[in-house]
Amino acid sequence: MALFVQKFGGTSVGSLERIEAVAELVVKTRQQGHQVVVVLSAMSGETNRLIDMARQLDTRPNSRELDVLLTTGEQVSVALLAMAIIKRGHSAISLLADQVGIQTSNHFGKAQIERIHTERLKQELEHNRIAIIAGFQGRDNEGNITTLGRGGTDTTAVELAAALKADECQIFTDVDGVYTTDPRIDSKARRLAYVTCAEMLALASLGAKVLHLRSVEAAGRHKVPLRVLSSFSPDAGTLITYEENSRLQSTVSGIAASRDEVQVSVLSSAENTPKLRLIEALCTEHNIEIDMITQTQQHSEKIGYAFTVHSNDHLQVIEILQSNLGYIRAHHVESNMGVAKVSAVGLGIKSNCGVTEQFFSALAQEGIKTLMDASSEIKVSVLVEEKYLELAVRTLHATFFSESTE
Amino acid sequence: MALFVQKFGGTSVGSLERIEAVAELVVKTRQQGHQVVVVLSAMSGETNRLIDMARQLDTRPNSRELDVLLTTGEQVSVALLAMAIIKRGHSAISLLADQVGIQTSNHFGKAQIERIHTERLKQELEHNRIAIIAGFQGRDNEGNITTLGRGGTDTTAVELAAALKADECQIFTDVDGVYTTDPRIDSKARRLAYVTCAEMLALASLGAKVLHLRSVEAAGRHKVPLRVLSSFSPDAGTLITYEENSRLQSTVSGIAASRDEVQVSVLSSAENTPKLRLIEALCTEHNIEIDMITQTQQHSEKIGYAFTVHSNDHLQVIEILQSNLGYIRAHHVESNMGVAKVSAVGLGIKSNCGVTEQFFSALAQEGIKTLMDASSEIKVSVLVEEKYLELAVRTLHATFFSESTE
Repeated sequence: MALFVQKFGGTSVGSLERIEAVAELVVKTRQQGHQVVVVLSAMSGETNRLIDMARQLDTRPNSRELDVLLTTGEQVSVALLAMAIIKRGHSAISLLADQVGIQTSNHFGKAQIERIHTERLKQELEHNRIAIIAGFQGRDNEGNITTLGRGGTDTTAVELAAALKADECQIFTDVDGVYTTDPRIDSKARRLAYVTCAEMLALASLGAKVLHLRSVEAAGRHKVPLRVLSSFSPDAGTLITYEENSRLQSTVSGIAASRDEVQVSVLSSAENTPKLRLIEALCTEHNIEIDMITQTQQHSEKIGYAFTVHSNDHLQVIEILQSNLGYIRAHHVESNMGVAKVSAVGLGIKSNCGVTEQFFSALAQEGIKTLMDASSEIKVSVLVEEKYLELAVRTLHATFFSESTE
Repeated sequence: MALFVQKFGGTSVGSLERIEAVAELVVKTRQQGHQVVVVLSAMSGETNRLIDMARQLDTRPNSRELDVLLTTGEQVSVALLAMAIIKRGHSAISLLADQVGIQTSNHFGKAQIERIHTERLKQELEHNRIAIIAGFQGRDNEGNITTLGRGGTDTTAVELAAALKADECQIFTDVDGVYTTDPRIDSKARRLAYVTCAEMLALASLGAKVLHLRSVEAAGRHKVPLRVLSSFSPDAGTLITYEENSRLQSTVSGIAASRDEVQVSVLSSAENTPKLRLIEALCTEHNIEIDMITQTQQHSEKIGYAFTVHSNDHLQVIEILQSNLGYIRAHHVESNMGVAKVSAVGLGIKSNCGVTEQFFSALAQEGIKTLMDASSEIKVSVLVEEKYLELAVRTLHATFFSESTE
């Protein structure tokens, strides 16, 4: 008897028919003699419907109340799935964040899970119940409802799997695994049977949408065996492994691309360089991640720094920097939204210096100008004009995967 | 400074425009210097939408999970109203049953409020916040979500008003008060400025839909000053009073009518009379109210009892009685759905024996045959064929209110 945590995303529970299909999948696992904890997202479209209502009332709705509103989406899903499973003659119970005991920080809209009390859950499992947990939500230490941010349901699943020491955390989604690149951009993309956690981490942080960064980080922290598979046509999917020396390791595992990037430039007059340390401190304070930090010199008279932020943080970062121009010794803040980040990720990059060279020369041969670049032991990233995204992805995929696809 | 509990029903919060209007009403009360606790229903249509989804999965959805599902409706309303009030520059906070501390029995779908912990609510009021409470919901002592049944939001409001010793509990609805009869049935109906709690109780139990029976019972138990008024055109509405000797008292206060009745007959062979005591005990055990109990003799060979139940309980009561035929010494159970109950209610009935006579002779003059009848100190009720409902109401309204309307 194994214990599986099975997470189903919004499209997997997007209609009553889909909920019936998920009920069948879960019951099948139970019938194989396993214990099952299910974690659900809101039915697809529901979260956006709720956000739309909130925005019609207030363009910047109160963040505490927005979390109260949004968590109803998952509550609907878990109740419906529990009904569908109970109707099939199996014992099931839905549990919300306060009933499971998912305690978070009080950052509404992007709370962090601080602790999961597993007593109740273990009791339910001992009573042979299928426990169906509302993902994405928590409670802070004052009992306020919080949400973990988009993709938070993956995090709930991984953290629950870690807390319960589950045998596997299975992320059922609308794709059947992790691909060498986004198949919608390059039809030659192929599925990886295995990917290491470090690589998955890099892929997720660089724009691969199959798993959210925070959930992969959580999996890595707890070494949770994580599998990505499709709820529409379940097979083995892709397993995220922790064995970094696998002989199956290829040099590059995947090409990631993201449009959700904005290039921000903090400029100054020549005699007065902006203080990068203070810029970084301000962003950290507001929970905004910055990446690809580069020193720049635009026009002769200005010197400064450029970096990228996620487009969700765009307006906030501009507001913060502009209201602290004196403090950070800057003169002017600019931003450029028409950009995309394209990256190659692979454990082999660190031991194969040729990869970086191949990467840049392939892009150069296609005439793709790179605006910024950044690399680490397992990735090489460039920022390009957004219009080059598809071309860059296909060029790099052909460069690193051409032989193996034949 | 007074403390008002203001309850808004489904149509009052049925759209974002209506939520904005409610926000204006609440803010206006706050600006007059009063403390306000708001209690909300789900947006109109939402509860039915959720029930429909549940029934598509299971014709008899699990009752615990149905409550988890349905309570999302009120959660959406309170979050949205809080946002709308906060946007207007006032401090507001939404609170769910577990956050307020509304503790109920564990009868899913029709739980009773056992206790309200007011500490948190009082704190919020002391901080000058407008507290916005999700009606209709509670938590049992194991932390399961419960609902109070249809009309439960009125009960939440009244129980909160009692617990907080509020100066008035204002039930905002889509009608502007309590009428002498349903204006949709008789256009000559007129609004009552005052009605005693005992009369309101009788009217509610006999089919007047403006207030739910349980909420009037709760108001009466705690002597909560209760006012019914319209959220669409707020004025003084109708005040429910506790002064039964008012000189303004008329003999009959209202004519109530209900289609939600089913006549049930429990029949037996002549030598074997059914045991009424056991029938009553079975119904009590299953929380089913029976009314208008009458001994009957249908055909020569059968003797038995007839009574009425609410149509919601129809299928359940038939099932219970039929599976206990031997126990209750019965031979056969029949039911008749094509009936309606029409009643006159008034404190003056007990002191004026002419009322009952007037009541029956008025119906007889119009040729309306009564199937059953029942009376108490403050009401006279008859069961008639459903097709006579409107005629019976208009006849009785003309009989008891003709002079005063001129």
